[in-house]
This record gives sequence, structure tokens and C-alpha cells, in this order.
Amino acid sequence: MTTAEKNTADRAAADLTITEVRLTPVLISDPPLLNVQGVHQPYTPRLVIEVVTADGVTGVGETYGDTKYLELARPFADLLAGHSIADLNGLAILAAQVGVDEARVDNAVDVGGLRGVQTADKLRLSIISGFEVACLDALGKVYGVPVHELLGGKIRDTVEYSAYLFYRWAEHPGGAGESDTWGEAIDPAGVVEQARRFVDDYGFTSFKLKGGVFPPAEEIAAIKALAEAFPGHPLRLDPNGGWTPETSLKVAEELGGVLEYLEDPTPGTPNMAEVSAGTDVPLATNMCVTTLPEIREAFLKDAVQVVLSDHHYWGGLRATRELAAICRTFGVGLSMHSNTHMGISLAAMTHVAATVPNLDYACDSHYPWQTDDVITARHVFTDGRLTVSDAPGLGVELNRETLARLHQRWLDDDGTMRDRDDAAAMRKAKGHEDWETPALPRW
Amino acid sequence: MTTAEKNTADRAAADLTITEVRLTPVLISDPPLLNVQGVHQPYTPRLVIEVVTADGVTGVGETYGDTKYLELARPFADLLAGHSIADLNGLAILAAQVGVDEARVDNAVDVGGLRGVQTADKLRLSIISGFEVACLDALGKVYGVPVHELLGGKIRDTVEYSAYLFYRWAEHPGGAGESDTWGEAIDPAGVVEQARRFVDDYGFTSFKLKGGVFPPAEEIAAIKALAEAFPGHPLRLDPNGGWTPETSLKVAEELGGVLEYLEDPTPGTPNMAEVSAGTDVPLATNMCVTTLPEIREAFLKDAVQVVLSDHHYWGGLRATRELAAICRTFGVGLSMHSNTHMGISLAAMTHVAATVPNLDYACDSHYPWQTDDVITARHVFTDGRLTVSDAPGLGVELNRETLARLHQRWLDDDGTMRDRDDAAAMRKAKGHEDWETPALPRW
Ligand SMILES: [Mg+2]
Ligand SMILES: [Mg+2]
Repeated sequence: MTTAEKNTADRAAADLTITEVRLTPVLISDPPLLNVQGVHQPYTPRLVIEVVTADGVTGVGETYGDTKYLELARPFADLLAGHSIADLNGLAILAAQVGVDEARVDNAVDVGGLRGVQTADKLRLSIISGFEVACLDALGKVYGVPVHELLGGKIRDTVEYSAYLFYRWAEHPGGAGESDTWGEAIDPAGVVEQARRFVDDYGFTSFKLKGGVFPPAEEIAAIKALAEAFPGHPLRLDPNGGWTPETSLKVAEELGGVLEYLEDPTPGTPNMAEVSAGTDVPLATNMCVTTLPEIREAFLKDAVQVVLSDHHYWGGLRATRELAAICRTFGVGLSMHSNTHMGISLAAMTHVAATVPNLDYACDSHYPWQTDDVITARHVFTDGRLTVSDAPGLGVELNRETLARLHQRWLDDDGTMRDRDDAAAMRKAKGHEDWETPALPRW
Repeated sequence: MTTAEKNTADRAAADLTITEVRLTPVLISDPPLLNVQGVHQPYTPRLVIEVVTADGVTGVGETYGDTKYLELARPFADLLAGHSIADLNGLAILAAQVGVDEARVDNAVDVGGLRGVQTADKLRLSIISGFEVACLDALGKVYGVPVHELLGGKIRDTVEYSAYLFYRWAEHPGGAGESDTWGEAIDPAGVVEQARRFVDDYGFTSFKLKGGVFPPAEEIAAIKALAEAFPGHPLRLDPNGGWTPETSLKVAEELGGVLEYLEDPTPGTPNMAEVSAGTDVPLATNMCVTTLPEIREAFLKDAVQVVLSDHHYWGGLRATRELAAICRTFGVGLSMHSNTHMGISLAAMTHVAATVPNLDYACDSHYPWQTDDVITARHVFTDGRLTVSDAPGLGVELNRETLARLHQRWLDDDGTMRDRDDAAAMRKAKGHEDWETPALPRW
């Protein structure tokens, strides 16, 4: 038997059947970051997914952890047992068999997620995503290859990320949650100071400011202050649909010279198309184009010039690559969105980003804001970049002690943190007791 | 060491580096099948590609073998040596480094290929395709898994094919080439008789007639005869852009009740859009949408309702899956095209077809017309279907004796068969000495 034949025989003998699925909801700390809907809660739910094969290989994934996701993930996990970790095309077929309690589906802009209108399919895709990543991690370990190789191979060795700047308070209302040393940022000077620390600590060279918090003039001033402090560095502003088309066009005119792109200035494809027709500033979105059915109208109307991929939205890493192909075909740019996440998801983002030829922008990531993580070695940004791992699978390892501790936090929670609700969190703040999710557009 | 750890260690030790690439042009026999441009030559060129890894694992692929493809394949093969068989995303990057002699690019409808307008990029994609298949075959053998599993897993166990009916002569002009027992088919009775044999021998339940050969009234009569002989069976007609929009609309009106789809009735997207606007018969294409840049206009104009994928066109099996995602997104149907090919390509077609959820039509294949093959065990259609192989890689093995013989035929050729030219072949027939490729539309 030659070495090649022996290897092949060994590989053929690998049993890829999933014999166990472990779902571990956790609560991870989150700073008081402000957005159009309110403020981040002190803790936010995430779900850690483990699939274990008959040979004892474990793969890990991560996705949203709110109750409505857990209610889908559990029956999905039951269906998955007995399937192969390699049967990735089968995940969507299985997910279609999981009933979604329509009462759980808001059919309104997701409170807290800021991920556009919620639908049953979007919930399903987010579940598929977490399991697909876990299967890919396990498969990579079985084959002895990194996840990026399962996606056709990396075409770059590092992936660039953008500094994700937020207006924020120094502390959560009532001093709840964990404290940090970032301090308050509620004006241009605070935003520039925050950006400076991002540069010093991580070497980021492009910046995104989460807007929609203060009247547009204040946010324009913040972007101008950033442009002055970091001349030539790409800048983005994302008010999450907080503005009317008229306001959006005024902002675009004011900031045309310094913005790399303007992200979701106004809600919905028709409004975005109206703004797009009136400005040369590229419009990006992770709100009006978040699923395949939303693409046609937006592309036909030239409503967006950049789509923000997010494997948690689109159904996984392979679906993200398909989205990239669609954008390539229609001459639409591609960037990458992030929600509050831990290191498993950041590893997954980095693997897929390494394989996409037309990922023309630095990716977003909340990671620097998240100090809780379930992996043994935190990712380290150098010059604003992560090195693409060549270790088998995702290249991360679970820290079971931390996982248990963050899960215990979830178990101990009285229910107030298990479903992210930025408006409810806002109402806990002095002077905001009557806060309601603003109708969009607000300004 | 657990079994899983041992397996992982073995796999990690596999050396995926390509140490040798073998290119073997062959000539395979082809019957005198008629089309709008002329007649198939007695022999048609194909290229067999072998990639060999440092561990001695060999993967095989197949693509077009005309001189213009060989001229690209050779420098591409030189570039590929030293790369990993897993670096599939890198193939396009390598191909971009291969210069295309623009003098070789017709920038007109491909004579003989009937694959739309020829461009340098299309030539490159066809080269990538053959190498991608070879790499996937090798990778599957290394991992001990079928190619469909490398594409995310099969979602069906068999793939349906369509009977590919041709107007044909009994023999090549002057009795050249190989003879067969099919006899002449130049009228409705001949077409029905041919279809009957396809049903008896292979169990096909859907039929495609290659048209554009006789005046439309005769081809309408042939389709009506098929509809009468095989009631309820899906029928397609493909004149390769032979008709004006007016003629196309008349044919669509005559055959509306019996056609599954009408394939490339008229040349170019604007003409197709005009026909599409005037009929409910779905229009399919492998001529006006053959590359990503052609999609936008065709989809925006609703010029086509079905795109025929072909991994030789689109750059491989993974690109075919991306095309499927694009069609899914825009509500455009997906079918599969075939050109003259052998069993390596049929295996590749079957693997990718098994993984595509929205492949809603039986695939085309010329395979029953091809008696020369370089694989040891020919594919066998049962009930018009092929069973998806679960053997490692493509699941085919090279018959080196046959490969050598068909390559010798290529070596021995005086140059007349090495570049497929259906018009030149037509001129060899009595009464057609002055044949020129007709300007399209012809009728
Ligand atoms: Mg956003
Ligand atoms: Mg055709």
C-alpha cells in the first residue's frame, strides 16, 4: 500500500456522522453602546453550538442566542443527529422542517438586532449558519485542513477589519454589568478619542461610526472631526435607517468628500433608491438587503452600491460566498457586517473573508468591545488585521471553564437579558424612562 | 492517540502539492449530427487533464480540446505545478496570468461550439473548469469522499437527463469516420424513430431536438410528431438562434402547448427579450447568457426564463453552483447544457447536478452519441437517469490504453479535425460545397 492509498483508506474510514449536538446559550458582557433603537444591554445572548462526530471530532459554531433562536436551534439539533457533518447542502432542507412560531416573528425591524425586517426564514438562516460553521470546523479537523480550504482556499493571508466606533456612555444605567476603561463618547471629541485608542491598541486604519443616535448635525460634526484627526482614512457612518431621504441627501452632500460609504441612511429599498439617485456617495446596507429575495428590487433600482455580508444573516459561509458571486455579477460592492459576537464567529468571518475575491472593504467587527469569549486564545488585531489561521478547522479551541461560567450567567438570569432589547435597556436610564423604539426615519 | 486523532494526523500529513500535470489531447468520434452552422465532424477534439500530487494521487478533468484551448492549457499547467489541489479559488488568479492571443478570439459566435460569442475570458473559464474538476477529483481521493461531498453534499441520489435528438445523416460525407446503426433522421418520422430508440435503450422521458437545420415548419412538424408519439413528455427545441423574433413568436404560438421551453430561438439578448415579451413559452439559453457579465441585461429585460448551466462555460463545478444561486435569487430557472463530451465530464456534470437545489429540468447530454471514452466503465442511463457516485473523487478511472489510442488519433490527424468547424465539415458533403456559416437569424 502506498502512502497515498493508506491515507485514502484511513480517510474513507472516518465516520462523519453526527452523534451528539450540544447547545450552550451564554450571556456575554456588552458595553453601553448607543444606536437608533436605544442602548446595548449589559449582557447579550449568544448560542454556542457543538457537533460531535462518531469518531469523537468536535466542531464549534456561534450564532444569535435570543429565545426565538433557541426555540429553533433545539428541534434543528434533534433533526441533525445522525446526519453527516459533510452534508452541508442538507442543512437548509432540515431547517425547512423546523416549524417557526409565527407569533415570535415580529415582521417589523428587529428590536436590538438592527438587521432589517424579521422573518421566519431569516431566523432559520441564522440557525443554519451556526450549525454550518460547526460542521465546517469539524470537517476541517477530520481532513486536517483549515476552514478556508473547505471554501476553496484563501486568496489572502490577512483580513482587514475596520474600527467600529460607537457613541456610548461610561457605564450602564445604575452601574449594571461589567465596567470598562473606555469612558463616555457622546460628542466629536469623545469619538475621536475613542478612535485614537482603536488605532493605538489595534492599528485599525478605517473607521465606522454607529450613528442615528444624535441629530444629524452632531454626527456630521463627529465624522468631520474624524476626517481631520485621521486624514485620508476611510470613514463610514451608519444611522440604521434613522433619516428621511431628504436628510440623507443633506448628510451625503456635507460628507461626500470624506465618506467611503454611507450605510443605511434611510429605511427600506424605495427610500434608499431615492437617496442613491441623488448622490454619488456609495450607499451600503445590512438592513434593506439581508436575504436573497430582497436583492432583485434593490439591484434593479440601483438602491445600494455595497451589500454588507454577514454569515449569520445569509445562512453560513458558503451562502456568503454565493452572495459575493451575486454582487460580483451585478457590479455591487461587498463589505462585511458584524453584530455583537465572540471569537468563534470572528474566526468564521475571517475564514470566509479570506476566500472572497471581491471583498473590497475592511470588515466590521464588534470584537474589541467584547471582553467575554469562549475560546482559549483571543484573536489579536495587528495593523487592523487578523492573520488567517491555517490550523485545522476554524483554528479556535473552546475554553470549557469560561463556557460554563457564561452559561451559568445565562441560567442565573431572571429573563431580562436573554432577549436583546435595546429599547428596554434604554428605559433603564435616567431621563429615558419613557423611551420607545423611534419610528424610522426619526430625523 | 484516538482513531480521530490518528486520522487527523494522517490527513494533515497529506501533501496536496501538484507535482505533475499531464495534458492529453484526443480526438473522439462524433456522428454526422446537424445544426444551424453545419454538421459535426467525424472526430472532435477534447482535452484530458491529469493533476498528480506529491503523494501520487491523480485527479482527472476534461474540457474543450481545440488548439485555442490547448494554447491556454499548456502555460496554465506550467503555472499550476507547485500549487495545492485544494487552492481552487486560486485557479482564476493563475488563469488571469495566462495571456490569450487575441487573434485566436473570434469575437463572433463560436463556429462549431454554438456557445455564444467567443471571448478571451470564456476561453480561460473553460480551461479553469477542466483543471478544477481534476483538482476536485484528486482532492476527493485524498479525503476519501465523492466530489459531490466537496460541493456540500448531494441532495438527490440520481440525476435526470434528457434525450438529445438530432437531425442527422446516416454517414459522414464520403463515409469518413466511424459508422453507427442509427441511420438517417431528416424528417418527423426519423426524429420519432430516433427518440424511440433513446427511450428503449436509456429510458429517457424528456426530449430535446436540436433545430435550426430545416425551415421552421418542418421542425414544428417534428415536435408535433414527438408530442403525439410521447404524449405528456417534456419537449424542447433549440435552433441555436436560427430565427428572427417574428419567426420565433410564430413557432412559440404553434408549439406553446407542448414545449417545456424554447431554447435560443433567436440570437442575442435584445431579440430574446422581444420574443419573451410576446409569449408565455419559457425561453432558455446557452448562447446569450454564457458568462456573469451577460446576466444583468438578460435578467433585467426578462429576456430568458431558464439559463443552461455548463461547467465548461462557467468556470467549473463551484462556479456552476454560484450561477445556480444567482438564478435562484432572480427567480430564473436552471437547466444544464452539454457539448460533445466523454465520461469524465459526464461524471462532473452529475456530481454538481446532484448538489444544486434549483436544477428544475432534466440535463442535456451528448453522451449517448459518443462511443469513444477514456474511462474504464461507461456511465449507464437507467430510466433516463444516472446514479450519483459515492466513490472517492469523480468515481471514474482512466483507461490508459484507450487514452493512448485516442491521443494517437490526434497525433496522426493532419490538422483538419483538431479544431471543430461544423461549417467546414458541411462543405465536404455533396451539394453543400459552397456552404457558409449562415448569418443568424437565418429564417
Ligand atoms: Mg449597519
Ligand atoms: Mg443550446
